[in-house]
Amino acid sequence: MVRLYGYWRSVATLRVRIALNIKGVDYEEIPIDLAHDGQHDPAFAAVNPLAAVPALVVGDGPPLGQSMAILEYLEEWRPRPPLLPADAAGRARVRAIALTFAADNHPVLTPRVVRHLVQALDATPAQQRDWVRHWFRQGLVQGEATLAGDPRTGRFCHGETLSVADIALVSHAEVARNFGVETDGLPTVGRIVEICRAEPDFERALPRHAPGGPERC
Amino acid sequence: MVRLYGYWRSVATLRVRIALNIKGVDYEEIPIDLAHDGQHDPAFAAVNPLAAVPALVVGDGPPLGQSMAILEYLEEWRPRPPLLPADAAGRARVRAIALTFAADNHPVLTPRVVRHLVQALDATPAQQRDWVRHWFRQGLVQGEATLAGDPRTGRFCHGETLSVADIALVSHAEVARNFGVETDGLPTVGRIVEICRAEPDFERALPRHAPGGPERC
Repeated sequence: MVRLYGYWRSVATLRVRIALNIKGVDYEEIPIDLAHDGQHDPAFAAVNPLAAVPALVVGDGPPLGQSMAILEYLEEWRPRPPLLPADAAGRARVRAIALTFAADNHPVLTPRVVRHLVQALDATPAQQRDWVRHWFRQGLVQGEATLAGDPRTGRFCHGETLSVADIALVSHAEVARNFGVETDGLPTVGRIVEICRAEPDFERALPRHAPGGPERC
Repeated sequence: MVRLYGYWRSVATLRVRIALNIKGVDYEEIPIDLAHDGQHDPAFAAVNPLAAVPALVVGDGPPLGQSMAILEYLEEWRPRPPLLPADAAGRARVRAIALTFAADNHPVLTPRVVRHLVQALDATPAQQRDWVRHWFRQGLVQGEATLAGDPRTGRFCHGETLSVADIALVSHAEVARNFGVETDGLPTVGRIVEICRAEPDFERALPRHAPGGPERC
């Protein structure tokens, strides 16, 4: 029994959904409604004292937090199909690409940061929206700079095999699209995202199929 | 021959320095002066097209980026002493704690984000300083919330053995201190930081010993 505590719009939850699908893990998603402070519900505090999604509970195990740590756990628990390359330098590259999205850019645009923008700098609704779009776009621009022209980039971010780098890229790009982020001038990123979106394991993970997700997302 | 491209004040470079010391790897640090745009030097673009430190080059291998990916690489290359627990659930917890610092909080306070605060919201010097301090403090507060009262926390973040969680915590706390961040009300974090600072591998990694680092840091 695998339970995923998530939110339809969450980029980090999307990463975990895609990985669970690729690994063939059956799971139930328990929606935590971030739009209505569901992450501060006392029942959820027992799952994650940091009030953040995603959290994954496998059987009677402890709740696991942080999407990139969850992806590493899934890779160890269900090694097939692999989502990391067989060689150490390849694994380092794939993890670094994933962290460009999951560490450098996505955390900067999350609701907790936007709330602080309002508290500390009186950010207007337009400034908040522009802030979110800016860091979505920066992630994609940095992804393009990393991937384009590197001979290690192939059909996917790293060679011919899907990896956690593709999962992080596509999760970022999908939610960016929902926020109306410009995606011009990103040929390598655009090509890989299109290839991945055609994979059923990615499609099934999209926000529109998650509990509470609107049809258009 | 191991070369670390870093900056004395960089939290992410500090993580890698500590890990290299613990693993007993001899390395040369090549300073990239972020205070004078050294990361945009064309010579460094060949090392990291994203113009970020740290980057690690091992022998004739490709440059490795992203501190958390570098730590995973070091763990695979030099498994002793281990910096991740032997069990999968323990590894997941340690990685998640490290990412609380390295993904959720530190990226929000980096110079590229502060520069955008100025460009997009006209942040004053006082607002910039408060922003940086706020996210340093938030990282420590979240660390305390994760560690305090969890029976898996021991002498170190996870049991009785140093791990990448301690490296991420101490790197965050050390640089926070240089920025004058309040550290009251964080007994568990404070205790673990003090224990780690007494370890020579941590002490040798501190900014004051790095090229360009001022004596007081």
